[in-house]
Amino acid sequence: MAAGFALLIEYDGTGLVGWQRQAAGLSVQQVLEDAAARLANGGTVATIVAGRTDAGVHAAGQVASLTLPDEAPPIAPDRLRDALNFHMKPHRIVVLRAAAAPDGWNARFSAVGRAYRYVILDRRARPALLAGRVWHVPHRLDAELMAEGAAHLLGRHDFTSFRAAACQADSPLRTLDRLDVRREGDCVVIEAAARSFLHHQVRNMVGTLKLVGDHRWPPEAVAASLAARDRAAAGPTAPPEGLTLESVLYPDDPFTDAAG
Amino acid sequence: MAAGFALLIEYDGTGLVGWQRQAAGLSVQQVLEDAAARLANGGTVATIVAGRTDAGVHAAGQVASLTLPDEAPPIAPDRLRDALNFHMKPHRIVVLRAAAAPDGWNARFSAVGRAYRYVILDRRARPALLAGRVWHVPHRLDAELMAEGAAHLLGRHDFTSFRAAACQADSPLRTLDRLDVRREGDCVVIEAAARSFLHHQVRNMVGTLKLVGDHRWPPEAVAASLAARDRAAAGPTAPPEGLTLESVLYPDDPFTDAAG
Repeated sequence: MAAGFALLIEYDGTGLVGWQRQAAGLSVQQVLEDAAARLANGGTVATIVAGRTDAGVHAAGQVASLTLPDEAPPIAPDRLRDALNFHMKPHRIVVLRAAAAPDGWNARFSAVGRAYRYVILDRRARPALLAGRVWHVPHRLDAELMAEGAAHLLGRHDFTSFRAAACQADSPLRTLDRLDVRREGDCVVIEAAARSFLHHQVRNMVGTLKLVGDHRWPPEAVAASLAARDRAAAGPTAPPEGLTLESVLYPDDPFTDAAG
Repeated sequence: MAAGFALLIEYDGTGLVGWQRQAAGLSVQQVLEDAAARLANGGTVATIVAGRTDAGVHAAGQVASLTLPDEAPPIAPDRLRDALNFHMKPHRIVVLRAAAAPDGWNARFSAVGRAYRYVILDRRARPALLAGRVWHVPHRLDAELMAEGAAHLLGRHDFTSFRAAACQADSPLRTLDRLDVRREGDCVVIEAAARSFLHHQVRNMVGTLKLVGDHRWPPEAVAASLAARDRAAAGPTAPPEGLTLESVLYPDDPFTDAAG
């Protein structure tokens, strides 16, 4: 019988085309499915992911469903994790935990929350230790003003102004539960949490808050930009490399009993 | 007149042969001096560094003296920083701050403290986001026992047991001011501070504490190993990639007025 697993995944998105398989370039999905195919005895492997991260975006706690076909010999979750990690070398993609998926569980549709972290390095010198992990802005931003601006986005709204043209969601309504902005040394760290996000929503919110941090927009302008329901009324899309999918929330954590 | 500068430097040591110039391979010193040579109008550039980091070791706050020769046109410290950063591209080496060196100041001999940070990732899966930055130990360590063991090394001692054979210091006596061990999620973070360290001292202390974290040594064995004054009585040298030179301390901070 086909066996369903829940996987907790970490990856460095640098040089990858994102989660989803593309005609050209290497995706996380392809690396993972190719590794799983080694265990599938000729059958077909299927994955479903909680957050379809874009090219260059990282994950510390991505979650995917993996279904091994009937042809695959039985395998314990911990051995599956180790075998996938072995076959995914040398890519910077690893399975942290694996568990048997509960009946009817689906990484995408069972998820009730996603948390993202965006880091801006706002100093003169380009990043050395944080290269590929941050948006480098070569001047100081006002993180306190950015936090004021962010507060205008909390709650349930039509986020059309912060939605990519290519977004396939049925509705632009989303409930933003958290959008914290704080300074950590030479970094401005932005943490966002919601049940789900529109395509590019976090990066578009960050690109807009950066205008506030630059003193080009007052914090109240963020509210006006939201109310306009027009992508052109918000700021530019922040670059992908500053973004990390931190965690995905489920009513029952599928990894409670999984070894890490 | 020759102009002396103090430089605060960050680098990712991955793929570098360390601070010091070597016959083969790229060093931080070479990248920095080659960049400075562009500004020297044919004269000779000299550098002196606070901490001669080994191959693969990183720095968040290395400090160097840089002397530009008489032939070099005058340059303001902030412009020097920007010019060096431009010429050091694409290497992961940047000058964070530059300042005119105080009279008689020397990055190495004026330093009164060095602080290092060592990170062990102790989980089953190899690192993806922290690749090249941590020592991967694929099983859980007991960080509390490691902290107990570390306490035996604090204070002024003959650190012969933790000194590399190649160490050129006149004396094996050192005063270890801090050796903190704590868990941060899937990492064990070790912070060490002293006026100065022997060659490989931090990595040899970490390699020894790891034996305690493995429950192969009781914490008291660290005291016995120190008392033996014999390199063979301590644990192996921890790998370089987990180590970062965090900061160097001076009686008067040369960067107080420097822009970052």
